Amino acid sequence: MTTIFRTLGLALLMALLPGWAAAEDGYELWLRYRPLGGAAQAQLQAGARSLVLATPATPTVDAAVAELRRGVAGLAGRAPALSPRAVPGALVLATRAQAPAGLDVPWDELGDEGYALRRQTLQGADVTVIAANTDRGLLYGAFAWLRAAQTGADMRRLDQRAAPKVGLRLLNHWDNLDRHVERGYAGASLWDWWKLPDILDPRYVDYARANASLGINGTVLNNVNAKADSLTAPYLAKAAALAGVFRPYGIKVYLSARFSAPVELGGLKTADPLDPAVRAWWRAKADEIYRAIPDFGGFLVKANSEGQPGPQDYGRNHADGANMLAEALQPHGGVVLWRAFVYSPDATDRAAQAYAEFQPLDGRFAPNVIVQVKNGAIDFQPREPFHPLFGAMPKTPLALELQITKEYLGFSTHLVYLGSLFEEVLKADTGHGGTVARVVDGRLNQHPLTAIAGVANIGTDRNWSGSQFDQANWYAFGRLAWDPDASAAQVARDWVAQTFTRRAAARDAIVELMLASREAVVDYMTPLGLHHLMDTGHHYGPGPWVNNLERADWNPTYFHKAGRDGIGFDRTATGSNAVAQYAPAIARQWADPRTTPPELLLWFHHLPWGHAMPSGRTLWAELIWRYGRGVATVDDMGRRWAALKADIDPQRHAEVTTYLAVQAREARWWRDACIAYFQSVSGLPLPAGVAPPAQDLAAYKALRFGFAPGR
Amino acid sequence: MTTIFRTLGLALLMALLPGWAAAEDGYELWLRYRPLGGAAQAQLQAGARSLVLATPATPTVDAAVAELRRGVAGLAGRAPALSPRAVPGALVLATRAQAPAGLDVPWDELGDEGYALRRQTLQGADVTVIAANTDRGLLYGAFAWLRAAQTGADMRRLDQRAAPKVGLRLLNHWDNLDRHVERGYAGASLWDWWKLPDILDPRYVDYARANASLGINGTVLNNVNAKADSLTAPYLAKAAALAGVFRPYGIKVYLSARFSAPVELGGLKTADPLDPAVRAWWRAKADEIYRAIPDFGGFLVKANSEGQPGPQDYGRNHADGANMLAEALQPHGGVVLWRAFVYSPDATDRAAQAYAEFQPLDGRFAPNVIVQVKNGAIDFQPREPFHPLFGAMPKTPLALELQITKEYLGFSTHLVYLGSLFEEVLKADTGHGGTVARVVDGRLNQHPLTAIAGVANIGTDRNWSGSQFDQANWYAFGRLAWDPDASAAQVARDWVAQTFTRRAAARDAIVELMLASREAVVDYMTPLGLHHLMDTGHHYGPGPWVNNLERADWNPTYFHKAGRDGIGFDRTATGSNAVAQYAPAIARQWADPRTTPPELLLWFHHLPWGHAMPSGRTLWAELIWRYGRGVATVDDMGRRWAALKADIDPQRHAEVTTYLAVQAREARWWRDACIAYFQSVSGLPLPAGVAPPAQDLAAYKALRFGFAPGR
Repeated sequence: MTTIFRTLGLALLMALLPGWAAAEDGYELWLRYRPLGGAAQAQLQAGARSLVLATPATPTVDAAVAELRRGVAGLAGRAPALSPRAVPGALVLATRAQAPAGLDVPWDELGDEGYALRRQTLQGADVTVIAANTDRGLLYGAFAWLRAAQTGADMRRLDQRAAPKVGLRLLNHWDNLDRHVERGYAGASLWDWWKLPDILDPRYVDYARANASLGINGTVLNNVNAKADSLTAPYLAKAAALAGVFRPYGIKVYLSARFSAPVELGGLKTADPLDPAVRAWWRAKADEIYRAIPDFGGFLVKANSEGQPGPQDYGRNHADGANMLAEALQPHGGVVLWRAFVYSPDATDRAAQAYAEFQPLDGRFAPNVIVQVKNGAIDFQPREPFHPLFGAMPKTPLALELQITKEYLGFSTHLVYLGSLFEEVLKADTGHGGTVARVVDGRLNQHPLTAIAGVANIGTDRNWSGSQFDQANWYAFGRLAWDPDASAAQVARDWVAQTFTRRAAARDAIVELMLASREAVVDYMTPLGLHHLMDTGHHYGPGPWVNNLERADWNPTYFHKAGRDGIGFDRTATGSNAVAQYAPAIARQWADPRTTPPELLLWFHHLPWGHAMPSGRTLWAELIWRYGRGVATVDDMGRRWAALKADIDPQRHAEVTTYLAVQAREARWWRDACIAYFQSVSGLPLPAGVAPPAQDLAAYKALRFGFAPGR
Repeated sequence: MTTIFRTLGLALLMALLPGWAAAEDGYELWLRYRPLGGAAQAQLQAGARSLVLATPATPTVDAAVAELRRGVAGLAGRAPALSPRAVPGALVLATRAQAPAGLDVPWDELGDEGYALRRQTLQGADVTVIAANTDRGLLYGAFAWLRAAQTGADMRRLDQRAAPKVGLRLLNHWDNLDRHVERGYAGASLWDWWKLPDILDPRYVDYARANASLGINGTVLNNVNAKADSLTAPYLAKAAALAGVFRPYGIKVYLSARFSAPVELGGLKTADPLDPAVRAWWRAKADEIYRAIPDFGGFLVKANSEGQPGPQDYGRNHADGANMLAEALQPHGGVVLWRAFVYSPDATDRAAQAYAEFQPLDGRFAPNVIVQVKNGAIDFQPREPFHPLFGAMPKTPLALELQITKEYLGFSTHLVYLGSLFEEVLKADTGHGGTVARVVDGRLNQHPLTAIAGVANIGTDRNWSGSQFDQANWYAFGRLAWDPDASAAQVARDWVAQTFTRRAAARDAIVELMLASREAVVDYMTPLGLHHLMDTGHHYGPGPWVNNLERADWNPTYFHKAGRDGIGFDRTATGSNAVAQYAPAIARQWADPRTTPPELLLWFHHLPWGHAMPSGRTLWAELIWRYGRGVATVDDMGRRWAALKADIDPQRHAEVTTYLAVQAREARWWRDACIAYFQSVSGLPLPAGVAPPAQDLAAYKALRFGFAPGR
C-alpha cells in the first residue's frame, strides 16, 4: 500500500482515537520529528533541499543520512534527495579527506568525534555544511543539526562546533540474563538474550539512534552483579549481534566481568589475579571476545563489594585485580572500569571506606584502568556531597558513575529531573584545584583516558523509561557526559523543545517545573543532609525506623542517629572524621556546622533539635518546614502541569497528570511517616500551624510492599 | 551487516513518514484497518456513510461506535458521522427495545451475546443493520461487521447471524505478581501491578479490544500457581482498576485463588474446606471482592497439584474444596473453575491419574462449579489423544483448557498454527454420544454452564505474542471458543486477511503454510504418539535421554520406554490399561495396534522396532522417516514464505523469514538428537539414504540452557 494512504489512515486514527499505535506514547523520545509549521518549516525546507556526500560511504554515514532524511521529512514535510554536487539549499556532509575546496572548518579542533555546522557559500551555492574528521563526527553533527532545527535555532545563520570533553560516555545496564533489571522501573531488559543472536528486535536500532543523538558511545550490557555465563561463547555471540547493530551508531559494547569466572568457567582452582594460570585464562578469554567483537570496549567490574568475588578473596588488592584484566585487554585496546563502590562490614563509617581502600592505591593501576566512582560516598541518595575520592587520586583516571534510574528517588513514578543533581556534582569544587568535572574530563591531572557512566533507566516499557519525564534523565546524562560544563537548565530546554513543545512560554513553564523537582524530592524524602531513610529492599517508601538489618550500616538509624539529644551523623573529628578525607579547605568548611551548607548539615553533624538554623528556625522546625516545602513544591508542579493542558497532546498530558497525582500523595506519605517517626524520638511538639501526620507511626511502619520492581 | 542494511533500508523507507507510527510491528494485531483500495473501498464508504444509534448509550455502545469509526476511517479513508435517523448508506446499531419498525431480526435466536448483520431497506433507505439484544451483542456485531469488511465479504448482500455456543470464553494468564509470566515467551506480564491502580497503561484498552473482537468475555489475571497476595485489599483494588478498563468490552475479571489463603492471610490454623471458620473466611473474602468488582467472574483453582495446597491436605476431596468456594461465590453469581490437572506421585500411569481422582466425583460438585480439563491427559504435548474425562462426567460441566502459549511447541520462535490442534481436540468423538465440542458446549448433557479456557501467550512484546504468527493462536482460540464447530482453516483465512493480506493467492499460500505447521512440529519433536521428550526445565529442546529426575513421571524415559526390545508406553490391559478409561468403542479401537491410528500408536503401545507399519516400513524406519518429514515441511514453509516477499510489508516479511530460519535449524536439532538417542538404545542401523545426525549423542546431551524464558 502507498505511503500516502498509510499516512492518511494514521492521521485519521490519531485524530479520532488516542491510545492506539500511532498515539503520542513517548516511543519517539526526543527524536520526535513533527512538522515545524509556518516560517520555520519553510526555512528548514529551503536549507535542506538535498543531501551532498563529500565523504566515503560507510554504515555510519548511511545512518546519518537516514536520520537526516527521516528528520527533515518529519519536520519540513519532505525528505531531501541525494545530490551529486553542492546546489543552493544543499546539506553537505563532509569529512576532511574529501572536503570540497572552499570549506572553512577548524578541523584540528574537532578531534575524532567533534563536528562543525556552518551555513556558508560553497561553489557559489548557499549551503549548510556538516563537517567532521570521522563518520562518527558526521553522525553526531547530523543529530546536532536536527536538534538545532527542533529547538528553533536560526538555520540561516548556523555556526556551531562541538567536541566531547569526556572520551568514554557509557550507559551501564544492570540487566540480568533472565531480563530482570536490577533497580529497573521501566519493564524488562531490552536485551532478549533467548532470541539473540538470530532475532534482532528493531528496537535495538532505535536504542542506538537515541544514544548516538546524545553522543553516548558505549554500553555495558549486563549487570555489575554479573553472571559468568555472559562470558561463555553463546552469550558472546549474542553480545556480538548487538554490537553489530550498535556499531554504525558509534556505540561500543562492554561487559560486566565476574571476577571468579576462571573458576566457574575455566575449572581453575583459583581466581587469584597473580596466578599465572588465571592470567592466562583471562588473556585467552579476551582474545576470544575480540574475535567475536573486534571493537569490544572492555570490562566493568564490581569486586569485593556486596558479596561479589574479587582479588581480596586471595589477599590481593584492587589494583592487582584490575591490572590483571587490563593486561588481558591491553593488546586489543580495551579498558577496565573498576568500581570503587566498596564497603567492608567493619565498624567504621561506611562513607569513609571506599576512600580508605582506594586512595592508597593511587598510581598503582595500569594505564588502561579507570576507577569508577559513584557521585557520592553512600549510594545515589537524593543529595550527597561529592565523593571524597574525586581529586584525591591524581595519578589515576577516575570515572564518574551517576544513577539515571531512580532507585532512591521515587522509581519512575516521581517526576525528578536529575540534570540538576548531575550538574551539582560536576560543578562541585573538589578543593584539589578543580571541579569534579575537571577530574572526570582529565584536564586537572592530564589523563588522556576519561569516562563517565550512567546506570540506565531504560526498559521494554513503550516510553523506554517508565514515564515520559524520566526520558529527560537519560537525555541529561548523555548531554552532560558530552559536555560536563553544560547547563542543566539549557539541557532541559532542549529536551522539552524536542520532546513536548517548541512554544517558548509552555517550554519554559515545563523547564521551571523540572528544575524545581530535584529540590522537592530532597525536601520530602531526605532534607538537610539526611540520607538512607528508605524502607528495606524496595527502597521506595520511607523507613527511618528500620534498625534490625543484618548489617548495622544497612539501617536508616545508623545514618540519621536520631535520638532525644538530636539528629545527624557526626563525621567531624569528634565522630568518624570522614570529613578529613576532603581537601583541607573543604574539610575545614564542612567540619563546622556554621560553615556547612544547610543542605549537607546532618550528613556531617549530629546536632541538638534546638540548633539554630540560618533561617532563624530551630533544627526541628526547619526539618519539618522542609518536609512541608517538598510537598508544597510537588503540589505546585501539579498546578503548573495542569495549566499546560492546551499545549500538550492529550495522551501525554493525561498520563503525566496521573503520575503527578501519585507523587503528590506519596510525597505526603514520606513527609508524614518521617515526621511521625522523628517526633517519636525527639519527643517535641509540632511547630504551631503544622498539621499532624495523617496516620500514626504504627500505620506507616505496618506498610508492606511485596513484588516491588527492581529487587 | 546484512541485518544492519536491512534495518537502515527500513529506516529510510520510514523516513518518509512523520514519526514511527507506521512501522508494521504487529501491534495492531488483526484489527489492522488499512485502506481497502479500489471498488471494495468505495463499496464500504457507500455502506457506512453514517452511524445511527437505535439503542441506549452505554460505555459498551461507545466502544462499538469508536471501533466502527476507527475501522471505517482506516479501511475506507473516512470515519462515519453520527446521524439521527436512517439515511441511505447508514450503519444502524439497534437493540430490541429501541429497534426501529421494519427491522427483520430473529431476536430470539441471538441470546445475550449474539448479533445479526443485515443489509436491508429501512424507512425507504438502503442501510446495514447491526442488531442484538444487548450492547455486548452490538459490540460483537460491530467487530463481526468490520471483519467482514476486512476479509472481503460482499457488504451489499450482508446477512449474517451468530451467537456463541460456549458461555464463558476465558483467557488464563499464568502471570505472577512480579510480572514474570510462567511459560510466557512474549516478554513480561502486561499487568503493571506496581503502578496499578492509579496508572492505567493505554495498552489495557487495546488488549480488551482484541479480545472483544474474538468474543473472549473473561480473563483470569494471575497464575494458577497463585500467591495469596492477589486476594489482599491492595491487589483487589488493582484488579478492580483493570476490571474497570475491561468492563465496556464485555470482559469479566477472574482470579486464581490460593487454597491456603485463609491460613496465609486470615491467620487461621487450617484451610480445611469443611471447617466453618474457613468457609466463613471465604464468604467474607467473596463479599469483599464483589464490593470492589461487582461483576467479578470467579475463581480458578489449581489444588493438590504440583505442590499447590488443596483439600486433600485435610483429608477432603476436590468436590469438598470446590463446593466451599462455590458456596462463597454463589450469592454473587460467581463460578469456580476447578482444574483437573492432577497427578499424585504414586507409581501408576500418570496419564490415568486425573480420571481416577475426578471421575468418581461426578455429580458431587455444586451447580456453579466447572471442572477444567486439559485437552490431553499429560500436558499440552504437540499431540495427545483427547482427555478421557471428556464424556465420562455427564453430571458435571467440563471446561476445556487449551494452551495458547507454546510451552512444548517451540516457544514463540517456532511457527506452529494451533488452530489445527484445537480443532482436532474439539472434533474428537468421545464415544459417549458426542464430540469433545458437544461436551464442552453443554449440549451433550444439557449443562447451562459452559466454559473454554486458553492459557494466554500474551506479554509486553510489541507484537503481543512474541512472534507475528503466534498472534494467530490467540485469534484461533477466541474464534473456536465462540464456535467450537468452526473450521481451523477458515479461521486461518480470516486471520491472514485481517492481519497480512486480502489478496487471495497470497492469503491462501499463507494458510497452507499454517495448516502444514502443526503436523510438522509433531513430526520433528514427537511423532507416532511419542510425548514428553523435551529436556528438563526449559521444555524447549530435545531430552529423550533424561532419566534422573526426582519423580519417575518427569523423565522422558518414563514416557517413551525405549529399549532394545522396542519403544512406546503400553497403556493396554497388558500395561497400565489407561486405555480402558475411554468409552468402550474408543477403548477397543485404541487397545489394538492394528486399529490405533499411527499418530497415537506409541501413546498406547510398546512395540518392537521391527513392527510393520501401514506404510510398509518398520516402526524404526517410520520413526526416522517422520522426523525427516518434519524437517522437510519446515524447509518447505520457509520456501513458501520466501515466495511471498512481494505481498508482505518488508518489516514483517523479514522478521518471519528470520524466525523460520531458526525453526529450520532447531527442527534438525530435534530430529538429530532424537535419532541419535533412539539409535543408541535400538542399536539399529539407519535406513539406507538417511543422513546420520550432525553431531554425536554426547554433544546433544551436553547442551545447556540457562535463563530460558518462562521458567
